[in-house]
Amino acid sequence: MNPALPCVISGMRPTGALHLGHFHGVLKTWVALQAEHDCRFFVADWHALTGASALPHDEAVYEMVVDWLAAGIDPERTTLFLQSRMPEHAELFTLLAMHTPLAWLERVPGFREKADQHPTYGLLGYPLLQAADILAHKGEWVPVGQDQAAHLELAREVARRFNHRSGRQLFPMPQARFSDAPRLTGLDGQKMSKSAGNAIGMRESPASVHAKLRAMPTDPQRVHRHDAGEPERCPVWALHAVITPSDDRADLAAGCRTAGIGCLDCKGALADRIVAQQAPWRERAAALEPKQVHWLMEVGTERARAYARKTLREVREVLSFQAEA
Amino acid sequence: MNPALPCVISGMRPTGALHLGHFHGVLKTWVALQAEHDCRFFVADWHALTGASALPHDEAVYEMVVDWLAAGIDPERTTLFLQSRMPEHAELFTLLAMHTPLAWLERVPGFREKADQHPTYGLLGYPLLQAADILAHKGEWVPVGQDQAAHLELAREVARRFNHRSGRQLFPMPQARFSDAPRLTGLDGQKMSKSAGNAIGMRESPASVHAKLRAMPTDPQRVHRHDAGEPERCPVWALHAVITPSDDRADLAAGCRTAGIGCLDCKGALADRIVAQQAPWRERAAALEPKQVHWLMEVGTERARAYARKTLREVREVLSFQAEA
Repeated sequence: MNPALPCVISGMRPTGALHLGHFHGVLKTWVALQAEHDCRFFVADWHALTGASALPHDEAVYEMVVDWLAAGIDPERTTLFLQSRMPEHAELFTLLAMHTPLAWLERVPGFREKADQHPTYGLLGYPLLQAADILAHKGEWVPVGQDQAAHLELAREVARRFNHRSGRQLFPMPQARFSDAPRLTGLDGQKMSKSAGNAIGMRESPASVHAKLRAMPTDPQRVHRHDAGEPERCPVWALHAVITPSDDRADLAAGCRTAGIGCLDCKGALADRIVAQQAPWRERAAALEPKQVHWLMEVGTERARAYARKTLREVREVLSFQAEA
Repeated sequence: MNPALPCVISGMRPTGALHLGHFHGVLKTWVALQAEHDCRFFVADWHALTGASALPHDEAVYEMVVDWLAAGIDPERTTLFLQSRMPEHAELFTLLAMHTPLAWLERVPGFREKADQHPTYGLLGYPLLQAADILAHKGEWVPVGQDQAAHLELAREVARRFNHRSGRQLFPMPQARFSDAPRLTGLDGQKMSKSAGNAIGMRESPASVHAKLRAMPTDPQRVHRHDAGEPERCPVWALHAVITPSDDRADLAAGCRTAGIGCLDCKGALADRIVAQQAPWRERAAALEPKQVHWLMEVGTERARAYARKTLREVREVLSFQAEA
């Protein structure tokens, strides 16, 4: 934690082991941000309460954090913590709730889409809890997807209102840091996601990666080996687009369009790339002891709490509650 | 704090020094409950954030707590604490929010009445925060006014749902303990309240009590001293009804109806009663040092936190979050 650097904060719901979609969509950005930011990444386990979970909580957390570390998150530079161990976030959420118009939350687009499913009070307040997560750390940059743009806008409105009422610039305005990575395509040509069963795990074995890719559908108009194919029609190509460098991609596209290579050649080249990319992840994960991972989270959580506690003291002072003894 | 006794919990927004309406409506009950209950009374300063306050926070808290003690709240037996120093309440509020249907809160009557005034998210969640206040202490009895009946019903629904989901009877069902005291009439014949400027303070000086009562309107049809009056038409009588024992009241009523006594006699008798009732309050308040009051709150808050922390550990365990280290 280096408060001289701009603070980046982001959380992820605990869903167990991560897949390539998580890596290319989120973790790659997280890893890159570490060099020049004070990064704080947290397990958003309170947020997970609004949905159903297939895995026991501790396992879902552990496997996810292992994949963060496998991807190259460096716990020496970056603070990792558990949201459910941060009562300060809940306190800030509660305090901010008192001055946040209900209408601000009702008009957040994501909510209205879910509103016919008997939403809970917590689901309506989800973006406000996110705001509290960010503001407790005076977060300046928040790596999010485009679908979270409205949530970040709410966090800014809440911060602005608080600063205005208190006459102090206690909170910096958090800015969204959108990822430029396109959504990764899964094995069936749809968006890669765990629940769709179309994912390749970050720590999936090489044999399984090869087997899964071999079974992938390709350009439906390329029926025989000697037929020419069109990459733009091929789900495998969508994966190449993210994973394979452009020079090699050009060769593969030419090979496909001229029937110079078969689909299995093309899939094999992709599988090799993926397996090569996984190698350092697997290596890092293999070197981790469960105790060590728990210890990292423990240390990170204490560090994050010390910071959030300080913010909350300032917030209470502004609201003129008695200071903690 | 004696956890072998049934737990009573109740809070009051910090509004500064209290008046006779607070004493007869609430404090009398609080004082009586102490004998056979584990009572916890708290300053509901988060709840106060949803409204505007005329007094600085610390003063509003201090003057109110002095009146609690003046009324006979015994800090040796009863735990007094500050809500704003209980992050556990905020954490429980946040956790319960995730499983509380929005519709439960939208249908709470008090909310719908205020809903046209641009309510905040916190105002909508007010009854849920109350539920968290109660459940963090496993409160069994909650002294409230009839207007809070729906809030207590919500607290029970929330507790029931939590117990049901967890398969454990973690929370007892909190019961409302309605006060049988009628609303105290103020100097203008309307309900006594600070904001209406029609109140007599618990520690108001005898001279001021006499002066205020002398200026009170009486039966409008009793214009002259020799006119007979009708107590049922008289606002002073409404105060006698709560403050004066029934034997003496019968004499006064007869005197009024026969013009045997004048209004000033009747008001003087009431003022004497009030001043006599105030005597022990004034005495107790005079013996209090500010440091001592702050210390009492400090000790009570630590005691209450220790208890709430234990409840939250159980709640986290049920939700299978990692236990605190």
